[in-house]
Amino acid sequence: MYVVKSPLPDADLKTVAEALQGALVDLVDLALVAKQIHWNVVGPRFRSVHLQLDEVVALARTHADTVAERSSALGVPPDGRAATVAAHSGIGAVPDGWVKDGDAVGTLVAALGAVITRMRKRIDATGDPDPVTQDLLIGLTGDLEKQHWMFQAENG
Amino acid sequence: MYVVKSPLPDADLKTVAEALQGALVDLVDLALVAKQIHWNVVGPRFRSVHLQLDEVVALARTHADTVAERSSALGVPPDGRAATVAAHSGIGAVPDGWVKDGDAVGTLVAALGAVITRMRKRIDATGDPDPVTQDLLIGLTGDLEKQHWMFQAENG
Amino acid sequence: MYVVKSPLPDADLKTVAEALQGALVDLVDLALVAKQIHWNVVGPRFRSVHLQLDEVVALARTHADTVAERSSALGVPPDGRAATVAAHSGIGAVPDGWVKDGDAVGTLVAALGAVITRMRKRIDATGDPDPVTQDLLIGLTGDLEKQHWMFQAENG
Amino acid sequence: MYVVKSPLPDADLKTVAEALQGALVDLVDLALVAKQIHWNVVGPRFRSVHLQLDEVVALARTHADTVAERSSALGVPPDGRAATVAAHSGIGAVPDGWVKDGDAVGTLVAALGAVITRMRKRIDATGDPDPVTQDLLIGLTGDLEKQHWMFQAENG
Amino acid sequence: MYVVKSPLPDADLKTVAEALQGALVDLVDLALVAKQIHWNVVGPRFRSVHLQLDEVVALARTHADTVAERSSALGVPPDGRAATVAAHSGIGAVPDGWVKDGDAVGTLVAALGAVITRMRKRIDATGDPDPVTQDLLIGLTGDLEKQHWMFQAENG
Amino acid sequence: MYVVKSPLPDADLKTVAEALQGALVDLVDLALVAKQIHWNVVGPRFRSVHLQLDEVVALARTHADTVAERSSALGVPPDGRAATVAAHSGIGAVPDGWVKDGDAVGTLVAALGAVITRMRKRIDATGDPDPVTQDLLIGLTGDLEKQHWMFQAENG
Amino acid sequence: MYVVKSPLPDADLKTVAEALQGALVDLVDLALVAKQIHWNVVGPRFRSVHLQLDEVVALARTHADTVAERSSALGVPPDGRAATVAAHSGIGAVPDGWVKDGDAVGTLVAALGAVITRMRKRIDATGDPDPVTQDLLIGLTGDLEKQHWMFQAENG
Amino acid sequence: MYVVKSPLPDADLKTVAEALQGALVDLVDLALVAKQIHWNVVGPRFRSVHLQLDEVVALARTHADTVAERSSALGVPPDGRAATVAAHSGIGAVPDGWVKDGDAVGTLVAALGAVITRMRKRIDATGDPDPVTQDLLIGLTGDLEKQHWMFQAENG
Amino acid sequence: MYVVKSPLPDADLKTVAEALQGALVDLVDLALVAKQIHWNVVGPRFRSVHLQLDEVVALARTHADTVAERSSALGVPPDGRAATVAAHSGIGAVPDGWVKDGDAVGTLVAALGAVITRMRKRIDATGDPDPVTQDLLIGLTGDLEKQHWMFQAENG
Amino acid sequence: MYVVKSPLPDADLKTVAEALQGALVDLVDLALVAKQIHWNVVGPRFRSVHLQLDEVVALARTHADTVAERSSALGVPPDGRAATVAAHSGIGAVPDGWVKDGDAVGTLVAALGAVITRMRKRIDATGDPDPVTQDLLIGLTGDLEKQHWMFQAENG
Amino acid sequence: MYVVKSPLPDADLKTVAEALQGALVDLVDLALVAKQIHWNVVGPRFRSVHLQLDEVVALARTHADTVAERSSALGVPPDGRAATVAAHSGIGAVPDGWVKDGDAVGTLVAALGAVITRMRKRIDATGDPDPVTQDLLIGLTGDLEKQHWMFQAENG
Amino acid sequence: MYVVKSPLPDADLKTVAEALQGALVDLVDLALVAKQIHWNVVGPRFRSVHLQLDEVVALARTHADTVAERSSALGVPPDGRAATVAAHSGIGAVPDGWVKDGDAVGTLVAALGAVITRMRKRIDATGDPDPVTQDLLIGLTGDLEKQHWMFQAENG
Repeated sequence: MYVVKSPLPDADLKTVAEALQGALVDLVDLALVAKQIHWNVVGPRFRSVHLQLDEVVALARTHADTVAERSSALGVPPDGRAATVAAHSGIGAVPDGWVKDGDAVGTLVAALGAVITRMRKRIDATGDPDPVTQDLLIGLTGDLEKQHWMFQAENG
Repeated sequence: MYVVKSPLPDADLKTVAEALQGALVDLVDLALVAKQIHWNVVGPRFRSVHLQLDEVVALARTHADTVAERSSALGVPPDGRAATVAAHSGIGAVPDGWVKDGDAVGTLVAALGAVITRMRKRIDATGDPDPVTQDLLIGLTGDLEKQHWMFQAENG
Repeated sequence: MYVVKSPLPDADLKTVAEALQGALVDLVDLALVAKQIHWNVVGPRFRSVHLQLDEVVALARTHADTVAERSSALGVPPDGRAATVAAHSGIGAVPDGWVKDGDAVGTLVAALGAVITRMRKRIDATGDPDPVTQDLLIGLTGDLEKQHWMFQAENG
Repeated sequence: MYVVKSPLPDADLKTVAEALQGALVDLVDLALVAKQIHWNVVGPRFRSVHLQLDEVVALARTHADTVAERSSALGVPPDGRAATVAAHSGIGAVPDGWVKDGDAVGTLVAALGAVITRMRKRIDATGDPDPVTQDLLIGLTGDLEKQHWMFQAENG
Repeated sequence: MYVVKSPLPDADLKTVAEALQGALVDLVDLALVAKQIHWNVVGPRFRSVHLQLDEVVALARTHADTVAERSSALGVPPDGRAATVAAHSGIGAVPDGWVKDGDAVGTLVAALGAVITRMRKRIDATGDPDPVTQDLLIGLTGDLEKQHWMFQAENG
Repeated sequence: MYVVKSPLPDADLKTVAEALQGALVDLVDLALVAKQIHWNVVGPRFRSVHLQLDEVVALARTHADTVAERSSALGVPPDGRAATVAAHSGIGAVPDGWVKDGDAVGTLVAALGAVITRMRKRIDATGDPDPVTQDLLIGLTGDLEKQHWMFQAENG
Repeated sequence: MYVVKSPLPDADLKTVAEALQGALVDLVDLALVAKQIHWNVVGPRFRSVHLQLDEVVALARTHADTVAERSSALGVPPDGRAATVAAHSGIGAVPDGWVKDGDAVGTLVAALGAVITRMRKRIDATGDPDPVTQDLLIGLTGDLEKQHWMFQAENG
Repeated sequence: MYVVKSPLPDADLKTVAEALQGALVDLVDLALVAKQIHWNVVGPRFRSVHLQLDEVVALARTHADTVAERSSALGVPPDGRAATVAAHSGIGAVPDGWVKDGDAVGTLVAALGAVITRMRKRIDATGDPDPVTQDLLIGLTGDLEKQHWMFQAENG
Repeated sequence: MYVVKSPLPDADLKTVAEALQGALVDLVDLALVAKQIHWNVVGPRFRSVHLQLDEVVALARTHADTVAERSSALGVPPDGRAATVAAHSGIGAVPDGWVKDGDAVGTLVAALGAVITRMRKRIDATGDPDPVTQDLLIGLTGDLEKQHWMFQAENG
Repeated sequence: MYVVKSPLPDADLKTVAEALQGALVDLVDLALVAKQIHWNVVGPRFRSVHLQLDEVVALARTHADTVAERSSALGVPPDGRAATVAAHSGIGAVPDGWVKDGDAVGTLVAALGAVITRMRKRIDATGDPDPVTQDLLIGLTGDLEKQHWMFQAENG
Repeated sequence: MYVVKSPLPDADLKTVAEALQGALVDLVDLALVAKQIHWNVVGPRFRSVHLQLDEVVALARTHADTVAERSSALGVPPDGRAATVAAHSGIGAVPDGWVKDGDAVGTLVAALGAVITRMRKRIDATGDPDPVTQDLLIGLTGDLEKQHWMFQAENG
Repeated sequence: MYVVKSPLPDADLKTVAEALQGALVDLVDLALVAKQIHWNVVGPRFRSVHLQLDEVVALARTHADTVAERSSALGVPPDGRAATVAAHSGIGAVPDGWVKDGDAVGTLVAALGAVITRMRKRIDATGDPDPVTQDLLIGLTGDLEKQHWMFQAENG
């Protein structure tokens, strides 16, 4: 049976693995939500919001990949399947159909806010057991908070 | 209320919209499944399969975007949310955890085969009502069939 | 006397040549109209509209070139001179002077709508006599319909 | 009502605006004429002339854009519509249909010569009222005179 | 025994496979013929013809690859070996030794003409059994017809 | 003691040096002001204004460098230190804190207007003593006036 | 009134905001000082110092932007105006006029040393309240210390 | 009659021309054989072999072009037509149809070995009459021997 | 005598300098070992392992450079000479001669594992005395652990 | 007999042609002199001077080309042959053999100074007869004066 | 006194140095002659010859640089000054003024032929004393002979 | 047992293999020595020497790779491990610690000189048994001798 030799003791590994799996689900969903609104936004700010959302998609996809491969590197198989994402994401339900630009921005502010709150808890939890994982989470949280500011500023 | 003026009559539009929404769900799931195996594959062909899967991811993401924006262009809001994908994808369930390279290739052969079968029906259905949509579906089906061959050849 | 040996019989050639000449005139005028508004638009959406219009210009110029060279390839000299364009374009008159951003978007919605309607007729007309020409027209119509959606969404 | 605050007094502005509007019309027509011959030229020098003409097109389009935006920057809305170009261009009529390579070169020599003559008058007229505009016209005239030489040399 | 599961029924597959194998042979030979003349052309148009021929080579190689991989994707092993090409190409014999530029252009006009005639029959034959293959053939025939025009224009 | 041998007589040099030092201060401050608003702008046009301002920053930095090195080339050491800029800039005080998008645009219109007025005087002053310096100032003033138009158009 | 919802409690935010505002002022001034010497340095090491200084400028500008946007992301408007920089920078006064290469290097060693000392205090202060900010400061301090070494080595 | 003035005396030229013509035929066939197997290989090493073969194709095409143009430069028209290649290649017959990955590698080892043996004889033969030609042959033989090693290592 | 003024007190500096010197030796040796196997690996996975090893080489060289320059920046001259590396590397002896692909992968798993264990101790040791150095070590350890996973997965 | 139709009257043309021919000779010689010293410089500043001189070479070659083509564009054949350059250059004799770095810099200061003095006279002479030529000369003189400063600063 | 320690004994060095100095003079003159004709060619083949000549210029400049730096590397200062080139070049006198395209091609055929003859003697002379120098000369002679063929073919 | 079929007879192979193994060791050590001094150099020429050394590193690494793979291609496994390099390098011992720029240059002059002497013997030894290997050694010796000159010139 295949086993990756983890550099962490079991208890630490459990904590870190949960943080990474949670981060993966949030980031995959963030990419899907941002694309959903990228396609459905309407209103005078269409172009600005449409383009800004693709930056969120690119950022969420890149970080999801990093987080999932970090989990594999610690010996824990990551799970980024659609059903898992649908069941465990920290982002609330997003309605279907066209969405006005102001509402689109508001949806992103809320989605980013929810993910950031969870990420900050993961930063706290992983510092002792694995500073390498914590460093990844710090870096991606900084990126998410920058996007959070820009969408708040758009509705400011 | 916002309405995109569709270039198609209502009956034709219904047929085309269903084909595009179905294609979108299949392609988003294909990208998620390919990434899932990209992270979890093990075995002597790890590197070959790991890299080939990222080509599938890139291709599925690009075509999903094209298909969703075609739906918007016809006045029908597309739906690519995680729950929708989990409920309606044409790709069968993929197990979690590590997956041996031969099984990984087999999973892709099956997933691509299922999507291709559905895409060919959509090509038939859309030719009369909207040759523009049909042309997109023909193009992406050619790309999927090329990948289908390469994964079959890997297990040949 | 110089003659390109056409791969099409005369009757088919006449149909296809008319479609291509009509498409050429519409596309050259679309590029000129989009540039005109690119220079004259004012209002809070100035930057978004200004930049989006340059994407229309690039797209219209590229397709005009393809269509004209397709006509030459079939042995029919294309005509894209200013007077021909002014006389035969399917796009209605555009006023001179500054134009508010909302009106600018509306003008593009109308211009793209008019060209798309004519292009869809040309797709129908060319399928039997020359599928190669039809394929070019299908491709460019898909691009125009994507722009049409984006300008409608801007005013949604 | 929208007004760009011009850095020039009214009398100067009138002179400069006429120079820029005239230059815009000439440059848009030069691009259309060069493309027309790019598509219709035949003869043993086909490839050389075909490619050289696309350099003229690129150059004329770039300078037309610069000139039009300079007019906007001075508070005068530019007019580059097809009918305006057809009515006011300084380039003589160009016949339709295939054109032998030697004649194609001759047409360009004449077209460039006509535009250059008018540009040199605009350089003289704008130096006092607006050295910024004059500098643009000097730069583009240098580019046109270089092309003029190369087409003359082709028929030398 | 290795078998690619073809998405086509047997009768359709036979028709499509013949079209693809024929197209492959013609395109490989077109690349070899164009290179042969690229090396042997002499005369005042040497540079123009020498360079234009390398565009034909690049185009023929790219399309040959696409056509061969389409055949593999349908489960039919393609054959692009020298002896097969020598025996079955649709391009007539090309003499060895230096070739004057006018004759070089004439040879290409003839070679492209022969290939185009055969490709148009393949487009007709493949539309019903496999629109994906037909779409590839339509695309490459458009490219060949553009080259056909340019070589005719060179001798115009 | 280090002395660059200036190509200009002393009286001319004094005039030109003052023009260059003044231009340097204005351009450094323009870059700082544009960055300040780039970070602090809020409102529905956030993204458009945020991005447009970075184009101003890039342009102001490039021209500041050119102007300072021109001064060095004439033998006069340039001064672009913060205190010098704070004391001598032609741009009025900019308030701290968040700034609404409309006000942000207005601030830039005013700042660019002030700098342009001073630059036009420097163009007049330097033409006789040093046409090389004048040519640099003409070129950068053209760029500033283009930005001035675009910000006016944004509030039009 | 516009408010960015900060992820930090008020007391923590105050500490972090002061660190970021101080870092911003130091980095903007470092860029201005490095440019000042880039323009005014003389001596046999002119080219080496002139080029090395532009690397400092690029680095200081990039980090200033990151720090300012981090402040905005935390809901605190950053202040990078010339007067603020002149009043609060940690870098001592730099004389105007030509500067010998050895003195130029010494000035940079001193300027970088002063900024590094302050940055290390900010790293200490921000670790508990906001590890995301701390991580930015750690990264940029590493870059500054590398430059500090290289300028010391230049005078070694 | 066209004659390139050769820098070599007749006897030397005959030796060198034979070496170049032989090298050309071998290299064109190597490219065709490598493409044939690129399309037809199956098995768990499909992706590795498929990609490695395209490196052989690129290398063989580049060197074939160099060798043919060297022949032209010496005044001897090269012959790279399909029938010539089929009749004179030093590479043994390659079967049609799918080929297992291990056999594919073996085929390349054999093909490269055969070509290398002939190339080393050509290196010996051309050193005295024409060191320029010899240098080309030495360079390309080094490239072939590197590929030969890599395919042997794949089956090691 | 040349001294770089270190930002750290002596005791801290000693700890950090040892960590950096140890990391440098390990990374230089990792690059040499990975190249050694890159040249000597044989077997059906030759190409995959050969290419993956060059990614390790690139990564190890880049991090070795960063670590050595960090040491210089702290005022401690780094030592990366062959004899030092041979004497102090944490990687066990690697046999000479050809190495089968499975053994090659195993050697890398062991080498990376040994280096990672030492790096994690260095991360612990440097956090208090110098968070800048710790951050570099965290970043490079993450990269090594990713490679460690990929080589384990290759033999999974 | 071939004649380019000049846009200038004969007297003006004579003045401008002399300015351009003189500028061409100076610039070709500047490129040769800079290369000569690039190859022969020795001393501790070898690398700085060696690299800076290649920037002078690139600049001189580009401007020589522009100046020569400007002459052709005015109908006057330019003369940049070695004997013409040797006879008419404004740059004094440069000794052969190795040259110490300080002397190398001094040689460039003198060479650039001599050329600049002549260029400034040409700027004065061409302004009235041909502002297009004058604008070219102003632009290249600015570039030469920037190099002049940098070489003076190197010896400062 | 500066001396580069040459790796060659004195007698060998003398032979090699003469070959390199001669090659340098020929190559510098070839670049000047090719530029001269690039500017002065007229006739229907203007564009082809004009562009082909710039390839000769680029090639001659690159090889001149390599040859001169090889001389320096052997301890012999190279001499590429205009007067030296004018006095010692192996290329015959080139007339001034416009030159018809056929004559231009003929001039290049003669110039390249003269240089090649001298280069082949240098290849013979340098093989024993310095194979490194011989290898450079072999490489550049191959490039010159390729150009020689192409210009002969142009007049074929 | 794995055996690469060598194209050389045994006696020749032994000679060539020794030359390649010796070259490999020298080049790996040259890269390590150059990096060592790149990190430890101090003095006013720090930047020039620091950068020049990285060019030596890149060159030595590239040639080491080529030489090692040439050995593999001949069937002889290369050995580039740290202990082998430490034991057999032709470069004398390099002291640890900071090194003044003049000494750094002197160290490189000596190191390159030692390696060149050994390489020239390898060129002599390999010409008869394997001209392909000799050609590689000639090429890399040319590069080393160019660096040797440049470091001598730096201390000239």
